[in-house]
Amino acid sequence: MLTFTHRTLGQRVLFGEGMAAEHLLAEVNRLGARSVMLIADLPQQQRARGLADRVPRAVVYDRVRPHVPTETADDARTTARAHEIDLLVSVGGGSATGLAKAVALTQGIPIVAIPTTYAGSEATDVWGITQSSRKTTGVDERVLPVSVIYDVELTYTLPVDLSVASGLNALAHCIDSMWAPRTDPINQAIATEGIRALTAGLPAVKEDPHHQGGREQTLYGAYLSAVAFASAGSGMHHKICHVLGGAYDLPHAQTHAVVLPYVLAYLAPAAPAALDRIASALGSQDAVSGLTALRDRLDAPRALKNHGFEESAIEEAAQLILPVIPESTPRPVTVDDLTQLLRDAWAGSTPTIGVNTP
Amino acid sequence: MLTFTHRTLGQRVLFGEGMAAEHLLAEVNRLGARSVMLIADLPQQQRARGLADRVPRAVVYDRVRPHVPTETADDARTTARAHEIDLLVSVGGGSATGLAKAVALTQGIPIVAIPTTYAGSEATDVWGITQSSRKTTGVDERVLPVSVIYDVELTYTLPVDLSVASGLNALAHCIDSMWAPRTDPINQAIATEGIRALTAGLPAVKEDPHHQGGREQTLYGAYLSAVAFASAGSGMHHKICHVLGGAYDLPHAQTHAVVLPYVLAYLAPAAPAALDRIASALGSQDAVSGLTALRDRLDAPRALKNHGFEESAIEEAAQLILPVIPESTPRPVTVDDLTQLLRDAWAGSTPTIGVNTP
Repeated sequence: MLTFTHRTLGQRVLFGEGMAAEHLLAEVNRLGARSVMLIADLPQQQRARGLADRVPRAVVYDRVRPHVPTETADDARTTARAHEIDLLVSVGGGSATGLAKAVALTQGIPIVAIPTTYAGSEATDVWGITQSSRKTTGVDERVLPVSVIYDVELTYTLPVDLSVASGLNALAHCIDSMWAPRTDPINQAIATEGIRALTAGLPAVKEDPHHQGGREQTLYGAYLSAVAFASAGSGMHHKICHVLGGAYDLPHAQTHAVVLPYVLAYLAPAAPAALDRIASALGSQDAVSGLTALRDRLDAPRALKNHGFEESAIEEAAQLILPVIPESTPRPVTVDDLTQLLRDAWAGSTPTIGVNTP
Repeated sequence: MLTFTHRTLGQRVLFGEGMAAEHLLAEVNRLGARSVMLIADLPQQQRARGLADRVPRAVVYDRVRPHVPTETADDARTTARAHEIDLLVSVGGGSATGLAKAVALTQGIPIVAIPTTYAGSEATDVWGITQSSRKTTGVDERVLPVSVIYDVELTYTLPVDLSVASGLNALAHCIDSMWAPRTDPINQAIATEGIRALTAGLPAVKEDPHHQGGREQTLYGAYLSAVAFASAGSGMHHKICHVLGGAYDLPHAQTHAVVLPYVLAYLAPAAPAALDRIASALGSQDAVSGLTALRDRLDAPRALKNHGFEESAIEEAAQLILPVIPESTPRPVTVDDLTQLLRDAWAGSTPTIGVNTP
């Protein structure tokens, strides 16, 4: 029986190489904006000013900080009020988009986002603000950018290592969407298309960071991964990585890259329809071997032991993870299962539970 | 090079068998509606009143007419004003949804749509009103239903013939989206999922009109076809069918069902990526033979000569169609091509141009 509630977020996506300035001007005119606040950190300043050259710019805000500290949010809001801003334009990664969202949240000003990374925040209505190193997050329609402008010219300078790690994180969003708490066929279809695009794009970027088609497919796939993830929520894979990152301070992207194939192998026997979607998008007969082949081509991180995770922490970690495994997970999960999964991921060995279990 | 502008329409979709009344109540409460106008034609009255049993219903409007005559629209708007309506709930096919849209267009009242057919109007922001048998259409965000409630219980009584014809029309929307004027990878992915769902659903409905899974997949596929079509616009196939329907009064669904494989065969050599998507969604090695196999299982209409089209009209029709072929069509089209395509479609013979051309 097919039962679901799906929320589609209304948004315009303008995609085209070398077209960001033109697309931005069109959106500013369409929205009738007269007083624009341009949000971009210092390294992005020159580029952002160039893009917004012909836009009625009231102020440029460059005090962008990671994780949107509450002081930064307050300061940016004050600036927006002082200049009677009617449109926020963010140029940059998750921090720039996040600051624009913090302003939109209280001021109700629309956002046009111009992302320069694969973070994906521009496609969600999730905001986050950090006070005394505690992050508060929430969901609000006002923070969803009305338009997103993608231009691969802005991504060529993103280093290959970071591109691959960030792309694999996006891939994890897509795959984990298949069994996340609010999974439904619509976000599964979007996630499938995301896997297809990332599978086409990432190896090309790995080989040549200036590969146009590779950058296009990766950027497009990253957008889809954010749409699917925002809709479906966090599945088993993200819960595991969240605990590992929080409790043991493991690096975000590498943790995702290592853990993903073990979760896929574990759930494979219990989620045949999802595995079919994943396999077909990977262009492989079989999802697990398709993911392995892709990871090999990308030279992806392989073992948690190489990224600061201690073998002695495995059992405790399994205990911490168990209570946060979502009910939507298609296969029952025990502490022993998690211990074995983490043991394999720690060592970087072939999964011993899941598709390889007799 | 990947260049597109995609507009995603924000909407909630609530899907579940036997859940329409519960979902409607939840939406009414979420929207805080206090004065609901229920729009449903006479044959749907009892069902609609049952679904809206616990809803703060101010008025039931049953004077639903096909193609939304302007007098009907005016009368319904007056009724909405008189009762200070704050939510429109439509139960029925395209005519009920269309009337709700006509009211929303001038009154700015939100719509919750409960479709009982595969028409798909509930997923678009397109409205249409008919004055003196001339239909005016337009696009307006106000007419997009805020929520759509799908319940297959409401579709079991839809006759098999009509279900198949309407489902093939939805399939044509999906396939034609692949090369329509505003085609982009996002609406192509949605269309691909629509083809997958309709391919799974329609044969099951054909065999047993009470097949739950079949009805679910068909209804879900019809929704996706409307999303894709609204986003991508009318491609070559729809332009041909529009001329045939308008100039020769051919029946809508049958015309679509007959013409589709000829357009697919014609464009196949010029659109390999689209054909790959279509083939994979049809579960076939090859799109054209996959569509043929599906049509065989559904006993779909095969020849325009059986549906009122005269052989003598073929050349004139080709002349009428040529100027409206979209520029986005991936293969050049001449009057001779169209004449041959229509000749084949008239006779119901194997396509002589396209994939079968040496």
